[in-house]
Amino acid sequence: MKRHSGLALLGLLTAFPAMANEPVQPIEPYQADNPAKVELGKQLYFDPRLSKSGFISCNSCHNLSMGGTDNMPTSIGHNWALGPINAPTVLNSSLNIAQFWDGRAKDLQEQAGGPIANPLEMGFTHQLAVNVLDTIPQYKASFKAVYNTDTVEIDQVTDAIAAFEETLVTPNAPFDRYLKGEQDAISGIAKAGYERFKAIGCTACHNGQALGGNSFQKMGLIKPYKTDNPAAGLSAVTGQEIDRFKFKVPTLRNVELTYPYFHDGAVWNLDEAVSVMAELQLGKELKPEEVEEIVAFLKTLTGDQPSFQLPQLPPSTKDTPRPDPA
Amino acid sequence: MKRHSGLALLGLLTAFPAMANEPVQPIEPYQADNPAKVELGKQLYFDPRLSKSGFISCNSCHNLSMGGTDNMPTSIGHNWALGPINAPTVLNSSLNIAQFWDGRAKDLQEQAGGPIANPLEMGFTHQLAVNVLDTIPQYKASFKAVYNTDTVEIDQVTDAIAAFEETLVTPNAPFDRYLKGEQDAISGIAKAGYERFKAIGCTACHNGQALGGNSFQKMGLIKPYKTDNPAAGLSAVTGQEIDRFKFKVPTLRNVELTYPYFHDGAVWNLDEAVSVMAELQLGKELKPEEVEEIVAFLKTLTGDQPSFQLPQLPPSTKDTPRPDPA
Repeated sequence: MKRHSGLALLGLLTAFPAMANEPVQPIEPYQADNPAKVELGKQLYFDPRLSKSGFISCNSCHNLSMGGTDNMPTSIGHNWALGPINAPTVLNSSLNIAQFWDGRAKDLQEQAGGPIANPLEMGFTHQLAVNVLDTIPQYKASFKAVYNTDTVEIDQVTDAIAAFEETLVTPNAPFDRYLKGEQDAISGIAKAGYERFKAIGCTACHNGQALGGNSFQKMGLIKPYKTDNPAAGLSAVTGQEIDRFKFKVPTLRNVELTYPYFHDGAVWNLDEAVSVMAELQLGKELKPEEVEEIVAFLKTLTGDQPSFQLPQLPPSTKDTPRPDPA
Repeated sequence: MKRHSGLALLGLLTAFPAMANEPVQPIEPYQADNPAKVELGKQLYFDPRLSKSGFISCNSCHNLSMGGTDNMPTSIGHNWALGPINAPTVLNSSLNIAQFWDGRAKDLQEQAGGPIANPLEMGFTHQLAVNVLDTIPQYKASFKAVYNTDTVEIDQVTDAIAAFEETLVTPNAPFDRYLKGEQDAISGIAKAGYERFKAIGCTACHNGQALGGNSFQKMGLIKPYKTDNPAAGLSAVTGQEIDRFKFKVPTLRNVELTYPYFHDGAVWNLDEAVSVMAELQLGKELKPEEVEEIVAFLKTLTGDQPSFQLPQLPPSTKDTPRPDPA
């Protein structure tokens, strides 16, 4: 699934051996091997007819104009329901070891089915979503071309959405260009921030290509994190008390775009998020100028945002079930 | 404002003199004379921070992936309010003599301010929307570049949105290519449909480049239109009883994409819409095969849909007022 992270990275590390010792690795551009599937997935990602109301699409809460998030503490869903947890960015989400804050979906395909059927999100069912698509000739032709099928199935819908989401990597961040040897790609303060980021231990969790997304860690490791949010984290999946309040470490890629922060979306400012993390996870009280350095580094992690034509959606027919806002 | 409709059309009519006798005229591509303003307007059009909730943008209800509409009888707005009237398409709306079904806004700029401050739509105020933009450096730089101003004002916001909306014309419809002499651009049944469309009198109201948008007409001219929708139409603007239930004639451009139909969005199928209109406005009962012809013609009016890169929105800052879903 992660064709962008394998051989290309190996090649890079051979070309720039110093990079191999860094805890952060650059993100490589994605090469789609099935453009027709990606195009179908893109349409589905933007299609609000996958929701009961006909108003909410994947892009409503994972907005590709806004860092793949909705920039709200928790999302607005069907009938203006407020969701229980912050919507994570879809950008670079193919690099996550699992999906959702608690990792309850093993991959992007499994994730994609969640919001469609969640009463607080798109409020639909898989069968009803498929029933809509099955009445639209252009969609049927696309599913036929990609999956060689005459009947749309939810596993194909989520597979296509996942294929599109896999393309949503953000290469060419200034920091990646710096990693690859372009010394002037980031400022002196950002370089100092990166060194401090490593020195105080942030890279224990925020490492790899995504600077996160590859482990579950307790929120409030040294000092407890105070929140009204009832999410239990990984323990809800494993049933193990030891996993209580463990969440998937969020990626720091494009972090300047993905506010507000933490699983409860309680913190809006990046400097505050850095301070809180240092204190709660590492037991360190950072001085304002130290925070400033780290924030300068974090802002160099904003890469190329998704760049494609706004998709056009095929029209409904007289057989298409109508949207129901109720 | 309508630079695409003047000299270019005159040139066409000189080149194809037969076209001058037709009640329908082709739409010409738009040539933006201020691309920076259009780009700014595009960002604003897609920016949900112009709404109180931070969730609803212009594109939510005038979705450029869906014929410039939301394909719902009436729109979902702030706090899941259902609007009072069908959202008209934004496509080719620069060709309208006035905006809204009742024409209460004289142009696109005046229209753009309406939904922002409508409690049932974006639920914000002009001042609060400006306050948001005024805290975002990239927006401030764009307003400075376009309007040479250090303070964002609502008239600039709506002017930029209108400039973007003016670009949303849909040239190159098969019917336009037919009008310009490409005999094979539409089918024989569509040609018969066009002749019938003219013969029974549809072109009395649906004429010009947009096949509508250029006059107000009573809904239910010969027989009354039955609806629960309380909209009074033009009389709400003029105060004249004679204008009661007069609405701006909707454009038929891209009509296969802009369902459901009529100001109350009560009719979903184009064939039913054609039958109802013929009966109520013209006193004619069409046979199914006559309806079929006209529908075939109407489907040749789908032109080039908006084609541009999904815009990227500049991030908020710590000074930016936060979205409020309440």
